[in-house]
Amino acid sequence: MPNISQRGISMPASPIRKLVPLANQAKAKGIKVYHLNIGQPDLPTPEVALEAMRKIDRTVLEYSPSEGIRSFREKLVNYYAKFHIMVDVDDIIITTGGSEAVFFSFMACLDPGDEIIIPEPAYANYMAFAISSGAVIKTVPSSIDEGFALPSMERFEELITPRTKAILICNPNNPTGYLYTQKEMNQLRDIVKKYDLFLFSDEVYREFCYTGAPYISAFHLKGIENNVVLVDSVSKRYSECGIRIGALICKNKMVRENVMKWCQARLSPPLIGQIIAEASLDTPADYMLDVYNEYVERRKFLIDGLNRIPGCYSPIPMGAFYTVAKLPVDDADKFCAWCLSEFEYEGQTVMMAPASGFYTTPGLGKNEVRMAYVLKKEDLANALMVLQKALEAYPGRTL
Amino acid sequence: MPNISQRGISMPASPIRKLVPLANQAKAKGIKVYHLNIGQPDLPTPEVALEAMRKIDRTVLEYSPSEGIRSFREKLVNYYAKFHIMVDVDDIIITTGGSEAVFFSFMACLDPGDEIIIPEPAYANYMAFAISSGAVIKTVPSSIDEGFALPSMERFEELITPRTKAILICNPNNPTGYLYTQKEMNQLRDIVKKYDLFLFSDEVYREFCYTGAPYISAFHLKGIENNVVLVDSVSKRYSECGIRIGALICKNKMVRENVMKWCQARLSPPLIGQIIAEASLDTPADYMLDVYNEYVERRKFLIDGLNRIPGCYSPIPMGAFYTVAKLPVDDADKFCAWCLSEFEYEGQTVMMAPASGFYTTPGLGKNEVRMAYVLKKEDLANALMVLQKALEAYPGRTL
Repeated sequence: MPNISQRGISMPASPIRKLVPLANQAKAKGIKVYHLNIGQPDLPTPEVALEAMRKIDRTVLEYSPSEGIRSFREKLVNYYAKFHIMVDVDDIIITTGGSEAVFFSFMACLDPGDEIIIPEPAYANYMAFAISSGAVIKTVPSSIDEGFALPSMERFEELITPRTKAILICNPNNPTGYLYTQKEMNQLRDIVKKYDLFLFSDEVYREFCYTGAPYISAFHLKGIENNVVLVDSVSKRYSECGIRIGALICKNKMVRENVMKWCQARLSPPLIGQIIAEASLDTPADYMLDVYNEYVERRKFLIDGLNRIPGCYSPIPMGAFYTVAKLPVDDADKFCAWCLSEFEYEGQTVMMAPASGFYTTPGLGKNEVRMAYVLKKEDLANALMVLQKALEAYPGRTL
Repeated sequence: MPNISQRGISMPASPIRKLVPLANQAKAKGIKVYHLNIGQPDLPTPEVALEAMRKIDRTVLEYSPSEGIRSFREKLVNYYAKFHIMVDVDDIIITTGGSEAVFFSFMACLDPGDEIIIPEPAYANYMAFAISSGAVIKTVPSSIDEGFALPSMERFEELITPRTKAILICNPNNPTGYLYTQKEMNQLRDIVKKYDLFLFSDEVYREFCYTGAPYISAFHLKGIENNVVLVDSVSKRYSECGIRIGALICKNKMVRENVMKWCQARLSPPLIGQIIAEASLDTPADYMLDVYNEYVERRKFLIDGLNRIPGCYSPIPMGAFYTVAKLPVDDADKFCAWCLSEFEYEGQTVMMAPASGFYTTPGLGKNEVRMAYVLKKEDLANALMVLQKALEAYPGRTL
C-alpha cells in the first residue's frame, strides 16, 4: 500500500473529535449530554427561507455561475450597505460556506511558505486550510486575563518576517466572543499598511454584537481597501448552517481573478442553498430581533452562572455566541474527557471543547474551555449545575 | 498592494473561459449560440428528486455529518452493488460534488512534489486540484487516431519516478467518451501493483455506456483494493449538477481517516443536496432508460453528422456524453473564437471547447475540439449545419 500524505498525518485531530466517541458511549448508557461544545444554533431557520425552498419550481437543478447567482449577489450589496460596507456586485463571490471563502483566500493570496499572523485562541479549522495551501500560521497569544483583547502592535511586529503576507482576524471572535474596538482595528490597519499585508477578516457573526459597542468591519478602514478580503456566511445568522453558503468579498481585482480560477475548478456553489440564502435576506426584522434577544439572555445566563461557580472565570463576550472560560482543573482536555467517560450527575453530563484546540502555542489554554450558548436556558441551567457538580467531583481539580 | 499567489497566476485560464465573453457579445448582437461546449444536461431532474426537495419539513437546516448522512450512504451501498462494486457504508464519504472528491483524494494521498500520471486529453479541472495540492501532473498522450485507447504499459513506465504516487483515470472518459476495456484495466492494475501506486478513478459517467461493452470499475480489479480511490457524483446521471453532491469511496482506512480531516475542516457537505440525491436513488427505471436512449440517439446523430462534414473526424465515443473531434482548421483555439466573434450563419453560431485545454503536452490537440451532446436533436442538427458553413468560410481552414 502506498504511503498517504504527511500533510494529513501532521494535522492534529481536534480535541473535540477525540471526545465524540466518549459522548456517544455516554449516550449509549442513557446519559443525557448537554452540548456546550457546538456552534450549531438550535433556533429555527426563518420561514421565508424554508418557504423559498419548498416553492422552487425549476425542472433542472443545474449548475449556477461559478461566482454565484447574480440576483443573490445584488441583494447582498444592499445587505452590506446596512452595515456601511459599500461594495459592488462584482466584489462579491459566493462560496460553499465561509470555510471555502477562507480556503480560497489562502489559495489566491498566499504561496507555500508564506506566513499568516493570527491572534490566538483562534477557530481551529483555519489551520487545516493553511496546511492545505502550504501557508504557515504564526500566532500572537491573547489572554483571558485581558479579556482576549488584541495583542499590541509590538507583538505583531515581532512576528513579521520577509515571508509575512497576511493577518487573519475573526470579528466578532470565535472562540472568545471578543469584538475588536475602533482603536484595535486602526492598529491592524496601520500594520497592514506599514508592511503591505493582506487582511483576511472573518465577520460571520456581525449580527451578534451585544454591548452597544460598534461593529467595525475591515472594510470600514480607510486606505487598505485593496488589502482586505472579507469572509462571510449566512450559516449562523439565519440558522442555516447546512445549506453551505458563504461569500468572499474583495475590492482587489487581481485577487478576485485568482479566486475565480479556484471557483471555476469546483464549478459552482450549491444552487438550492443560494436560493434559500437569497430569500433569507428578506427575513423580517422581528425574527432577527427575537434571535438577538434570545442570545443576549442566554449569554447573561451562562456567563453569570459560570462566574458563580467557585474557581471558574469567564470574561463577558461582546459578540458571537461563544465564550472561553477558565476552570479550576489541571488539564481541560482530561477534564472534558472525564466528564463524558467517568462522570454523571442524575443521569446527565456536559460536553465542552477544550481550548487547547484553539491555541497553537503549546501549553496555552490548558485550563480553558470553549462553550457555545446555543442551547435553551433550561438546558443551560442544567448544564451549569452539572458542571459545578463535575468540578466538585473531579480528581484533578485545583481548588 | 501585496502580491497575489503565483500558484493562481501560473494556472492557465481554460480556453473555454476566454470564449465566454465572445459568446456573450454574440448573444448581445442577437445571434443564437449553440452550446456544444458544456456538460450541463438539458434533461429534467427526476420528479422523485424534486418532490423530495419540496417536501422537506425540517425547521432547522443544520449541519449534516462531515462524512455525509448515514441513510444516504447506506442507500449508495445498494446502488453500487448493482454495478458489482461491493463496498461498506464506512467506505463512502459524501463530498461537495465530484470535484471535492478529486481534491480530497489528492490532499489525502499526495504530498507537494508527488507525481500523478494521467492519460491526456483529460478533464481540465484535475490540473487545478493538482496545483492546489502541490502535486505534479505527468500526462501520457492518447491519440485520436487510436480512438483514445489507453497508452501502452511502456508509455506509463517511462514516466515513473521515485515521486510517482498515483495514476488518475476517468472512465467512461471526459472529454473523449472512451470506455476502458478489461484488458486496459488489467494493465492499469498491473502498473498500480508493480509500483505500489494509488489509482484514482473518476467514474461519474458509469450509467452512460452505449456499446454493450462492459463498464469495468477500478473496484472490479483484484489485488489493489487498498490502492483504489473512486470518485463519484450524482450530477450527470440525474441531471442535478447544481446540488453539488459527490462521493469519495475507498476501502483503505488510513486514506479515509486522512480524507476525514479535510471533511471536518469544511464542516459538512450540502444538506439539501444530500436529501435530493438520496431520493434520486429511487428514480424509476423508465426515466433512466429514456435518458439513456436519448443520449444514444444524440450520440449517433452528432457523430454521423460530424463524420459527414468534409475534413472532420470523430471516433465513436463509447460512453459519457462528449466526443473529441478533429476539424480541418489550423488552430482550434482560433477557430472557436472566430465562430463566436466573426461568423454567423442566418443569425446562428456554435460554441465548442478547443481541445488544447485538455492536453498539457504543448501542441497536442491543436486541431481538435470537445463537443458535448447534451442538446436536443433539432439543436444538434442546426449546430452541425452551422459548423459546416463555418468550416467553409473560415480563413484558416486546411482543406
